[in-house]
Amino acid sequence: MRFLPAEIIKKKRNYGALTEEEIQFFIRDYTNGKIPDYQMSALLMAIYLNSMNEQETLALTQAMLRSGEVVDLSKISGFKVDKHSTGGVGDKTSLLLGPIVAAAGLKVPMISGRGLGHTGGTLDKLESIPGFNTQLNLEQFSSAVAKHNICFIGQTKEICPADKKIYALRDVTATIESLPLICASIMSKKLAEGIDGLVLDVKVGSGAFMKTLAQAEELSLSLMSIARGADKKIATLITNMDQPLGRFAGNSLEVEECVAIMMGKEIAPDTRELSLKLSAMMVWLGGGAASEAEAYKICEKILTSGRAFEKFEELCKIHGGDLKSLPRPKESLVVLAQSSGFVSEMNTEAIGIVGIKIKAGRAQVSDIIEPTAGIEFHKKIGEPITAGEPLFTLWGADKSLLENVRQELLETTSISLQKPMSPSLILKTLL
Amino acid sequence: MRFLPAEIIKKKRNYGALTEEEIQFFIRDYTNGKIPDYQMSALLMAIYLNSMNEQETLALTQAMLRSGEVVDLSKISGFKVDKHSTGGVGDKTSLLLGPIVAAAGLKVPMISGRGLGHTGGTLDKLESIPGFNTQLNLEQFSSAVAKHNICFIGQTKEICPADKKIYALRDVTATIESLPLICASIMSKKLAEGIDGLVLDVKVGSGAFMKTLAQAEELSLSLMSIARGADKKIATLITNMDQPLGRFAGNSLEVEECVAIMMGKEIAPDTRELSLKLSAMMVWLGGGAASEAEAYKICEKILTSGRAFEKFEELCKIHGGDLKSLPRPKESLVVLAQSSGFVSEMNTEAIGIVGIKIKAGRAQVSDIIEPTAGIEFHKKIGEPITAGEPLFTLWGADKSLLENVRQELLETTSISLQKPMSPSLILKTLL
Repeated sequence: MRFLPAEIIKKKRNYGALTEEEIQFFIRDYTNGKIPDYQMSALLMAIYLNSMNEQETLALTQAMLRSGEVVDLSKISGFKVDKHSTGGVGDKTSLLLGPIVAAAGLKVPMISGRGLGHTGGTLDKLESIPGFNTQLNLEQFSSAVAKHNICFIGQTKEICPADKKIYALRDVTATIESLPLICASIMSKKLAEGIDGLVLDVKVGSGAFMKTLAQAEELSLSLMSIARGADKKIATLITNMDQPLGRFAGNSLEVEECVAIMMGKEIAPDTRELSLKLSAMMVWLGGGAASEAEAYKICEKILTSGRAFEKFEELCKIHGGDLKSLPRPKESLVVLAQSSGFVSEMNTEAIGIVGIKIKAGRAQVSDIIEPTAGIEFHKKIGEPITAGEPLFTLWGADKSLLENVRQELLETTSISLQKPMSPSLILKTLL
Repeated sequence: MRFLPAEIIKKKRNYGALTEEEIQFFIRDYTNGKIPDYQMSALLMAIYLNSMNEQETLALTQAMLRSGEVVDLSKISGFKVDKHSTGGVGDKTSLLLGPIVAAAGLKVPMISGRGLGHTGGTLDKLESIPGFNTQLNLEQFSSAVAKHNICFIGQTKEICPADKKIYALRDVTATIESLPLICASIMSKKLAEGIDGLVLDVKVGSGAFMKTLAQAEELSLSLMSIARGADKKIATLITNMDQPLGRFAGNSLEVEECVAIMMGKEIAPDTRELSLKLSAMMVWLGGGAASEAEAYKICEKILTSGRAFEKFEELCKIHGGDLKSLPRPKESLVVLAQSSGFVSEMNTEAIGIVGIKIKAGRAQVSDIIEPTAGIEFHKKIGEPITAGEPLFTLWGADKSLLENVRQELLETTSISLQKPMSPSLILKTLL
C-alpha cells in the first residue's frame, strides 16, 4: 500500500490519528531514504505539538523495531528479561542486577548505551575494565546469553536504524522532548533485544530527565502500555534521583563500588538496595518466585553468598575483561565542607556536569572519557557534617582538571542547620 | 548576531514570539543554504500549528523581501500602485485595470504570476498575444514604468528567493494553509515591486481559496496589517467567486473579452464593473481623486473614451505583442442545458479543473497550456435557461479533449426551478 508523505503529515497536523499502515510506510520509507529529512522533521514537529495516542505510539515503536534486525532468542529456553533506566548520576545497578538475575537462572540479554550529557552509560563503566569488549556481533551475543545467561553489547547498526536516524534529526529540530517519540525510541530498542519481560527504572529528581513524579508516572504508563501492546511483561519502579546513587560517580570507580558490594562491603547501601529491588522485580516477572518478597530473598542470597560476584567474573571472562587490572585514578583532590550541619540538597544534574568537566562523562558523542575520573560522595542527603570534613573527593588523571571544578562542585550541594527528611529511594511501584 | 536554529525552532514550538533578529537570521541563513531544509520544515510546522503574531508576520515578510532584490522605482515620480488578487476562475481584471490606472496617470508596476491548479495567471493571458514578452529584466521594467506608466513582468530569480525556496518546501510538508506564511509570501513579493500602494482583491466562494467571508476577512486584515507596517497604502475589496468572472475562462478568450469591453461591447458586465471598482480604488489610493465615487467616474471615462484601449495597445507594443494576430480556437463544442429553470449554482473550482483538463490551465508547473483553450459561460447564476439551450461552449485546439469533459462540465452547474438570489459582486470593502 502506497501513501503520499505530505498527506500523512497533513493528517497529523490536523490532529488526526495515523493508522498502523501509514506509520509503517513513513518509517520504512524514511529509513530507506525515499522520504527526505525535511518531511520527517515536519511530521516530528506535528507529533511533538499534536501528540499520538496509545495505538499510534505502539505502531510507531513497532515500525521502528521492524526497521532493522530483531535479536532472535526464541531458541534459547528460559525467561529473557532486561532492565531499562531513564538515566541518572552514579546509576550503576545494571552491573549488579545483571549477574544476580543471571545467577538466579533467568536470561539477561542487555543492549546498553554510552554516557552522554550529565548521565552515565553502562558500556563506559564496563569498558573501564581492561580488555572488556562490548563490540560482539549478534550471534556471539545470543550464544553467550544461551551459555552464560548474560551478555552486554552496545547498539549495533542492524538494530533500529530508524531510531538512530530519527534521533539525530530530533536533536537539531527541537523535537526531543515528546512523550510518544521518547517512548517509541526507548521501547523499539528494548523490544529488539528479543526479551519476554522488562523492568523499568524511571528516575525522578534533580539529576533525572523527569523532574516531577507526575511526569515520571506519565512516561512510565506510556512505556508500559507499549510493552503490553507488544505482549511483553513489564513492571516499573519510579526511583529517586535527587542525589547521586551510591558512593561514586565515574566509570572505574562505579565498577569498584559494585565489586565491593558483591564482596559484602557496606559501601553504598542505596546502590545495593535498589539493585536488589530491581533484580527481585525481574525474577518475579520471570516467574522465578511466588512473590516480590520471595524474589528479593532469592536475590539477596545470591548476592551475599558470592554467587553474584562469581557470575560477574564469568561475565568479565565472556567479554575478555581483566577485572584484576582495573585501573586506579592517579590523582585525587579532597573537597572539604565549608560549614557544619546536614547535607540538605544535591543538584545532581550540576554534579553530572562537573563529571563531564573532569572527563568522567561526555558533552558530545565524540568526546573521549578518562575511565578513572569521577567523584566520591562522602556524605549523602540527611547526613551530618562538620566544617573542614571531606564532603567530596575528586578522582582522575589530570590534577588541574580537578582543581578547576572544586568551587563548582561545592556549589552543587547545600548544608543546612536543620536535619532534612531523608529522601525515599523508591517512590512508586507500577505493575 | 548569531543564533542557534534549533533554539529558534524550540521557541516557536513553545508558543513564543520570535524577534525580528531571529526571523531575519533564520530566513537569511536558510536562503544561503546554511540552515538545511529539515530545520526550516520543522519551523514551518511549528508556525503552522502555533501561528505568528502581527509583528512576527511583518518581520517574516520583510526578511523574505530582503532575501533578494527590491525594484528601485524611487527615481520615478508619481504614485506606484499595484493590485493583487488571491486568484479565481476567469479573473482577468489586471488586463483592464492596468491600462485604466496607467492612463489615469499613476504608475502601475505589475509583477504577475502564472496559472496553477484551478486558478489562472495574468502572464499566461498576456502571453496568448503572439510575441508578447514578459521576460524583461528589472531595468527594462522600471524604464517602461517611467515612460509608459505600466509594465508587466514575471517573478525573477532576484526577487524574494526565500519565498521560492520556502514555498517549494511548504508544498511537500503540509504547511501551505498557514495564514502568516500565506501573508508573508504574498506581501514580500508585492513589496519587492517598489510600490507605494496596493489594492487587494480577496476572492471568496466555490472557486476561491477562501471559502467563507470570515476567512477572507481574516486574510485581508492580516495582509493589510503587513502593508501598513511597511508604510504602504492599502485597500481591500472582498469579492465573489461563487461563479467565474465574466463570460470566458481561458487565456486568449479572456484577452478577447477584455478587448471587447475596452471597445465598448456589453459582453461581461461583471468583469467591467469589478475592474472599474478596483481601478477606482487604486486611483483614489494614489490621491488621484477626492473620493472613490469621483475616482470611479474618472476610470469609467477612461474606459468609455477609448483611452484604456489605447494604453492597452501601447502596453502590447512595449512587450512586443501583436494583438491583431491573437489566435482563435480551432475547435469548439457547445454544451446544452439538460433541464429548464434558472442557473442556481456553479462549482467554480470544479470548472477550473475542467479548464486544466482541456489545457486552459496547469495541474503542475511543468504542464504546457494551449492559449486558445477555454470555457464560455452563456448563462450566469440567476439567469433563466431552457433545456436544449447552450449553457457552455468549450473552446480549444483538440476536439477530443473537449468531448471528454462535456459531462464533467455539466455536473459543475445546477439548474433549479426557483430563481436564486443573484450573488453580490463585491461583498465588502476594507479601508
